[in-house]
Amino acid sequence: MTKQRIHLFDTTLRDGQQTPGVDFSVEDKIAIAKLLDEFRVDYVEGGYPGANPTDTAFFGEQRTQSAKFVAFGMTKRAGVSASNDPGLAALVQSKSDAICFVAKSWDYHVRVALGCTNEENLESITASVEAAIAAGKEALVDCEHFFDGFKANPDYALACAKAACDAGARWVVLCDTNGGTQPSEVRDIVAKVIATGIPGENLGIHAHDDTGQAVANSLAAVQAGVRQVQGTLNGIGERCGNANLTSIIPTLVLKPAFCERFETGISVEALAGISRLSRAFDELLNRAPEPQAPYVGMSAFATKAGIHASALAKDPATYEHVPPEAVGNRRKVMVSDQGGKANFVAELKRRGIEVPREGHRLDALISLVKEREAEGYAYEGADASFELLARKMLHTVPEFFRVTSFRCMVERRFDANGQLKTVSEAIVKVLVDGEEKMSVAEGHGPVNALDLALRKDLGKFQHEIGDLELVDYKVRILNGGTEAVTRVLIESRDAAGGRWWTVGVSDNIIDASFQALMDSIVFKLMKNRDMAGLVAAE
Amino acid sequence: MTKQRIHLFDTTLRDGQQTPGVDFSVEDKIAIAKLLDEFRVDYVEGGYPGANPTDTAFFGEQRTQSAKFVAFGMTKRAGVSASNDPGLAALVQSKSDAICFVAKSWDYHVRVALGCTNEENLESITASVEAAIAAGKEALVDCEHFFDGFKANPDYALACAKAACDAGARWVVLCDTNGGTQPSEVRDIVAKVIATGIPGENLGIHAHDDTGQAVANSLAAVQAGVRQVQGTLNGIGERCGNANLTSIIPTLVLKPAFCERFETGISVEALAGISRLSRAFDELLNRAPEPQAPYVGMSAFATKAGIHASALAKDPATYEHVPPEAVGNRRKVMVSDQGGKANFVAELKRRGIEVPREGHRLDALISLVKEREAEGYAYEGADASFELLARKMLHTVPEFFRVTSFRCMVERRFDANGQLKTVSEAIVKVLVDGEEKMSVAEGHGPVNALDLALRKDLGKFQHEIGDLELVDYKVRILNGGTEAVTRVLIESRDAAGGRWWTVGVSDNIIDASFQALMDSIVFKLMKNRDMAGLVAAE
Repeated sequence: MTKQRIHLFDTTLRDGQQTPGVDFSVEDKIAIAKLLDEFRVDYVEGGYPGANPTDTAFFGEQRTQSAKFVAFGMTKRAGVSASNDPGLAALVQSKSDAICFVAKSWDYHVRVALGCTNEENLESITASVEAAIAAGKEALVDCEHFFDGFKANPDYALACAKAACDAGARWVVLCDTNGGTQPSEVRDIVAKVIATGIPGENLGIHAHDDTGQAVANSLAAVQAGVRQVQGTLNGIGERCGNANLTSIIPTLVLKPAFCERFETGISVEALAGISRLSRAFDELLNRAPEPQAPYVGMSAFATKAGIHASALAKDPATYEHVPPEAVGNRRKVMVSDQGGKANFVAELKRRGIEVPREGHRLDALISLVKEREAEGYAYEGADASFELLARKMLHTVPEFFRVTSFRCMVERRFDANGQLKTVSEAIVKVLVDGEEKMSVAEGHGPVNALDLALRKDLGKFQHEIGDLELVDYKVRILNGGTEAVTRVLIESRDAAGGRWWTVGVSDNIIDASFQALMDSIVFKLMKNRDMAGLVAAE
Repeated sequence: MTKQRIHLFDTTLRDGQQTPGVDFSVEDKIAIAKLLDEFRVDYVEGGYPGANPTDTAFFGEQRTQSAKFVAFGMTKRAGVSASNDPGLAALVQSKSDAICFVAKSWDYHVRVALGCTNEENLESITASVEAAIAAGKEALVDCEHFFDGFKANPDYALACAKAACDAGARWVVLCDTNGGTQPSEVRDIVAKVIATGIPGENLGIHAHDDTGQAVANSLAAVQAGVRQVQGTLNGIGERCGNANLTSIIPTLVLKPAFCERFETGISVEALAGISRLSRAFDELLNRAPEPQAPYVGMSAFATKAGIHASALAKDPATYEHVPPEAVGNRRKVMVSDQGGKANFVAELKRRGIEVPREGHRLDALISLVKEREAEGYAYEGADASFELLARKMLHTVPEFFRVTSFRCMVERRFDANGQLKTVSEAIVKVLVDGEEKMSVAEGHGPVNALDLALRKDLGKFQHEIGDLELVDYKVRILNGGTEAVTRVLIESRDAAGGRWWTVGVSDNIIDASFQALMDSIVFKLMKNRDMAGLVAAE
């Protein structure tokens, strides 16, 4: 049997922007679009060009991507022609492959929100779709409030879908805008839509999670006949979020109920990238990943000690609904980690670090890493700090220089002109080759001042770090309160194109930053001597 | 039509205990059982008496509750009689109204995990149920791996269910132990079980969230005929969690697809307690509540879209799938640069802030908020800072005190014993009632030191802030590099149960923290004078 193709439509950059607390910059949008394109979703909806400065700037960017790039916007206003509607003009002229029009399909909203007649709304749908096609773009129509509208006035909701389809829209997307529709209702209503003559091949589903069933609603719609699924990374979105693509995609690819009948643009092999995709997205948003997220969460394949854990060791397949590797995740048995040591040795070899024959130094390294990770260090995200630690424990790392003390000061007071001013200053004492050097610098905040002071005079090494540059600085509070433990991650680069991450942890943010800054400088000096591993060569 | 009764079975204290990071004390269990009983679930499963000291102690407590109190444990071992099995004896003698036996129903697990014959396993089920009934207790049987077992060997899975039913078990619970079963499969398999003669009135469903569909699986089973639903508060549980009762219950009570046919022990009026129940449970676990949780999350009825917000003001019912009050939650129209003027006015009114007739002060406030959000302030997450800003712009806020200057110092050096030590100190000068006060404090890091110094002596206001406590501190770097702009969000609470968030933004993390700390103290003083809005009254 030929499998039917399910098209994946990502709206992280558009509907995901409605998430409370989420506010993408243009740089965020560029980075997220790249992640999505590399993962091979079919459509990336970028935003609403013309509606706000960020989206307008993002649509102004040049792009080369294989996913279809979609601009979102309203159908033309009633009472003006398509060619005279400035909103529609902005969409048609935008650098996009497709336009997704949002159209009212509940007569109540046509009257109250648009203030036009039902007939005028149908004409707007038709004219907007035709304008997009005339401009050489693919047209999609999001039928807003479709399910609620269908319950109130089925004939009118169907008329809206039909108008979109008849005008040539590639996709008519049925939206559960308020998120309260139940899977059984989705099934029934999709069947009725298809029965009126709109082919499932032209239908999409857009679900929200207000009853905790956005994933189930999307999959129920697929089983009822729709062939496009809209959703977001990690289920972000307004209120309770949109349908979570990071849950839906593995189910479509791995579960017999779906993969025996359907296929997506994502191969079984490519699916292994989904845990990384999910975590990279959270990293960009600087949010802690949800440990219990289906498929991709750190705890998704974790078992506490007990009956399950020992049976799991005998035959994982009977205690795991899918193999964790299939989604790029891993099993976590929260007793002693059997495969731990082998993983470690493989990781060290990958970095070109030889493991000494006598085992105790390796054991000491493993227990130190476990201890530090329990304190909050995250070596998965800080390759350079891990490599330095491993080299120190297994072999030796030269002590290029030593910081004997430092002092940071932040002072806020009125200056001579009566203006409030905050000044940050750092003083560092460094010992290089037996000689003590003292440097002072002012900066934007205490960490910046400390960074500048640290790199001001390293004596004979100073010329070696001229091209060292800090490119990113991330802070995460690991528990509540202002007495919280803080983790700092710093990304550095140099003129040779190397990039590396270092980490510091402390209940003092300055101390944590200092550790990460020091690791970065030492790693750079090692790298200059060809002593650093693959991480710097990326 | 008489409605059919759906019985709610809570396993927070038993299966919820498998959640990574969750470890209940006896006191926790007593408090949670009380919350559940007051909310009127039908069954509270308390744990596994005899398996660990906490559960044994918890079952030793005297209790008066209306919910049936359930002990969980294994069926008797093969090869011994029911009266000679010490595990079974502990269950039968426990202070419980009912016993829930976990029984294997997948032949593979009978062989590998139990190491007995299929026939012996059936005998264990029968004998265990009979022993519970003989002791005057209600018997339930959790058929472990029922759905996977049914796919592998339907006859044997059905034989296990039948053995439980024939022996007199009140409930035969079909468990999706590995969590990978799809709703369409649940529907089909439940229908087949009922077709063999086990009445739906005796069937329950126990689902896990490994594909993000535990809620949908539970509700699909109800539609297919089962009459008991097992789940946990806020969906805690092993791996991705159990079916979330705080999502399922509102759907059963409010959604026509269910409430027209079914009823639970929870009335429409009692349902309004569910948001409080959910948050009280998180409070007990000392976790931040999930803002996007269906029905009960702080963002479940939040909107930041301008178009939606203005229509929402006209007629909430058409933009909300249920009224927020029905679940004890509330509408939240978020102030952000995505929203329009209508958002602002609605939000100000809700906080009891009158908007002056002449419009220019409101316009000035809106443009200030937009400007500040462009700089990185996030008022949607910082209600108290927004309220202070609005009151300052629209009316006046008394200047309780003024910080004329502060200084923070972080010093790292070797102490007298040659140990590296980092010390953080802050000095604050405050003007209260014309009198200058100077305070100094040491802390864990500069922010903690500043917080302590700021709250050390506020003169005549000092007694008012004794119960002010910082409970969370979040840092977000808004762009790259150590010169980055930093946003700090601080959550505070007081003894009256108020909770509020404040925000600060600066290229200096100390400055950003100072702004948020100041807003928190001023908000608290306003709140003490009944000048702060609803946010503090929660």
